[in-house]
Amino acid sequence: MSKAIVSREQDYSQWYNEIVIKAGLADYSAVKGCMVIKPYGYAIWERMQRALDDMFKETGHSNAYFPLLIPKSFFSKEASHVEGFAKECAVVTHYRLKNSPEGIVVDETAKLEEELIIRPTSETIIWNTYKGWIQSYRDLPLLINQWANVVRWEMRTRLFLRTTEFLWQEGHTAHATAQEAIEETIRMMDTYAEFAEKWMSMPVIKGIKSANERFAGAVDTYCIESLMQDGKALQSGTSHFLGQNFAKAFDVKFLNKEGKSDFVWATSWGVSTRLMGALVMTHSDDEGLVLPPMLAPHQVVIVPIYREEEQHQKINEVVAKLKNEFKAEGIRVLYDEADNRSPGWKFAEYELKGVPIRLAIGPKDLEKGTVEVYRRDLKKKEFVPIDGITAYIKNLLVEIQKSLYDKAIAFRTASTIKVDDYTTFKDILEKKGGFLLAHWDGTSETEEKIKEETKATIRCIPLEGEKEEGKCIYSGKPSAQRVIFAKAY
Amino acid sequence: MSKAIVSREQDYSQWYNEIVIKAGLADYSAVKGCMVIKPYGYAIWERMQRALDDMFKETGHSNAYFPLLIPKSFFSKEASHVEGFAKECAVVTHYRLKNSPEGIVVDETAKLEEELIIRPTSETIIWNTYKGWIQSYRDLPLLINQWANVVRWEMRTRLFLRTTEFLWQEGHTAHATAQEAIEETIRMMDTYAEFAEKWMSMPVIKGIKSANERFAGAVDTYCIESLMQDGKALQSGTSHFLGQNFAKAFDVKFLNKEGKSDFVWATSWGVSTRLMGALVMTHSDDEGLVLPPMLAPHQVVIVPIYREEEQHQKINEVVAKLKNEFKAEGIRVLYDEADNRSPGWKFAEYELKGVPIRLAIGPKDLEKGTVEVYRRDLKKKEFVPIDGITAYIKNLLVEIQKSLYDKAIAFRTASTIKVDDYTTFKDILEKKGGFLLAHWDGTSETEEKIKEETKATIRCIPLEGEKEEGKCIYSGKPSAQRVIFAKAY
Repeated sequence: MSKAIVSREQDYSQWYNEIVIKAGLADYSAVKGCMVIKPYGYAIWERMQRALDDMFKETGHSNAYFPLLIPKSFFSKEASHVEGFAKECAVVTHYRLKNSPEGIVVDETAKLEEELIIRPTSETIIWNTYKGWIQSYRDLPLLINQWANVVRWEMRTRLFLRTTEFLWQEGHTAHATAQEAIEETIRMMDTYAEFAEKWMSMPVIKGIKSANERFAGAVDTYCIESLMQDGKALQSGTSHFLGQNFAKAFDVKFLNKEGKSDFVWATSWGVSTRLMGALVMTHSDDEGLVLPPMLAPHQVVIVPIYREEEQHQKINEVVAKLKNEFKAEGIRVLYDEADNRSPGWKFAEYELKGVPIRLAIGPKDLEKGTVEVYRRDLKKKEFVPIDGITAYIKNLLVEIQKSLYDKAIAFRTASTIKVDDYTTFKDILEKKGGFLLAHWDGTSETEEKIKEETKATIRCIPLEGEKEEGKCIYSGKPSAQRVIFAKAY
Repeated sequence: MSKAIVSREQDYSQWYNEIVIKAGLADYSAVKGCMVIKPYGYAIWERMQRALDDMFKETGHSNAYFPLLIPKSFFSKEASHVEGFAKECAVVTHYRLKNSPEGIVVDETAKLEEELIIRPTSETIIWNTYKGWIQSYRDLPLLINQWANVVRWEMRTRLFLRTTEFLWQEGHTAHATAQEAIEETIRMMDTYAEFAEKWMSMPVIKGIKSANERFAGAVDTYCIESLMQDGKALQSGTSHFLGQNFAKAFDVKFLNKEGKSDFVWATSWGVSTRLMGALVMTHSDDEGLVLPPMLAPHQVVIVPIYREEEQHQKINEVVAKLKNEFKAEGIRVLYDEADNRSPGWKFAEYELKGVPIRLAIGPKDLEKGTVEVYRRDLKKKEFVPIDGITAYIKNLLVEIQKSLYDKAIAFRTASTIKVDDYTTFKDILEKKGGFLLAHWDGTSETEEKIKEETKATIRCIPLEGEKEEGKCIYSGKPSAQRVIFAKAY
């Protein structure tokens, strides 16, 4: 398979697809809209999972598991929830196949009395379960997370970014007071932001969604939004304050400290394999994937360069020692000894796969006591003394992690623009995209009109930064603060 | 909720259910045959997952993820496979709901052209994918595992042991030769056996299934079988040599080193949340769950005993120091300070939940410099000097892990009986069960008759132990070796 990929300028969308497929992150499947996550992609996802899971546990959450299948009647109990998800539900109607003259067919005698929905999200089945678990304030808070697959029937899909089945985590918490639930909602948005910035080297803006973009069934949706290299926004995580909506729909009450009965307050929050798409589009370049060291399955790859077997043996000895030193320092290292591939082939392969650091060692390096160190993010090569290389690499990994973040935030800063007139607004969206900070009158009507005319939506009402009053860019009506508009994935 | 549970003698089946529910491992769900895995149960499953996953990676496997939904036509390509699973398939037929005067209903205009099956196992979708990944011997072996949920429509379900949806891992490997695939099949059976014995303290017998009990689509099924306290066997893990059956069904060929085209050789292997049921039934007693320390979410629980707040403060100081020491040694410790529960309540709670060691510290202990150490498995109490307690606890955890294994293997040895006449065979099965080592003529006919008459099946043809010839217990025909009969879950 050719290593060369289309450049971002030629075709951004194709560039993305080629990286995902050629770097071995994911593949199309035979099932419409569903993807296969390949081993290299899954290894990155596993690292994301581990880091997030540790953060959830540090904030007091436990994992559990709830059924994949949800009775249709549960699903309908919260009106705006079913409204939001009904059009994309996979429905199980039968539970048996049988032989027939036409081959294997559905057995019509095995029809379910009530259809089951494959979970698109689990609020309904979970709140139906919580009803049995919560009686008094002593049972609260209930802080539970689930790692699971979900299905939302999508007509237009893209690997990682929008697939019919995807993997995610969904936290579902229950609280005695609105205040405590709101604090939890914000805590988890902050947790997502910390993960994105620290582990993914991806800067995010924290904010609240407008009514149009809110989760179906939520009182408020908090989110983190990131900016991709083509100037489009990507919603990277959401945390919902659900009020008492699901407690009321499933009749979940508790006795508070004063002995009075009240409905329970809820939150839910999730991130998904969509983060893999965000990771690819934040850092990668025209040579392929670029990975932040903290998430890279291999942080360092070592390629031996030799003609004679004797040289090979000597390199092996040096590398064996290096590998042990690296591993002792927690550096994830791969030694690619395969003798049926040339060094050039390997260089191209690991370039495409975004391995942060590549070391090449040949006979001359052994003579001089040096190693060739190649840094993927800057495509910069240098020779470094092999003495002290472990400490050098360890520092370099930290440096790369930081450098990727700095580069991404510099790009975002340059692409975040205050706009005060609608013509300029449309013009920027047309030409380069980005986050547009503009005043909005707070109505869904205005938001919808702007969307119709420009395809841009309100990504969020940002929580941080100055709160400057002004006039709506569309209607001229008063506005309390600027919001962020962008075209979005 | 009352802590007391029914005893094994009163009602073994009820005893099992009560432990699972009252210890907080799992709960029934509103969806027929599906369970909710509760946080305490899930924490044990997570420890199992982590240990197994590490073992899979050490043996060269990578994780990946394949679609939940399988087109019906794929499913039908391997004849004996569809035969084995067709009767328990959940079928997705539609992809949208809609509003109607009767409420939310399935939208009949959104009917799938081809029905999708929720995976009961993934051989078909995976081999359809492997076709695109394998061209030459250089692409082999392909060593992939997936952690996933699967659905098999069950009419009679039991928490963990048999549920419509369950969690598992399924390994799917592809090889250039039959020999290599068989070695992989055996390696993974051995891996499962090592996990069961080392982590679960559960002795297992390794063997091969008879044709009747073989996986649908396999050439040979290898397994590990364990014996529960009621004398019934539990199949705890299976590893299948699939020959070229799935490669032929999905036309997966490769060019071998000689440049000739051949079908690829396959294996698949899996363990599931069923292991949770095995764990409960192997060690627990009439007071509740008993957990091996290596899988216990909390290895040690500390309960403070005091009347006055001043005493409480002093105990807190001692415990804070202890906790740090324990954690530094990798001991998982919980300090239960809750002041709205009595020490007696807590003792009963952790007894039921199977925490391996309970420490109680009161004012008198502080005076004497001792701690009360209670060992869950033997229900034995002693006073131990607080000085050096960390090393003491660390050793005790190792001792408990071993002691549980020794007890389980002693039970199995006592329940494994050589039988040479059919009357005794029936009698033992009726009265106490166990593993019956008996001669069998090798025919499915005999096996089926014995099953009809006694409900016992051949659990496996054991791989280890003496291979003594004899005569079939049922037909009197010659037999090459004894096989293991038992009633099974």
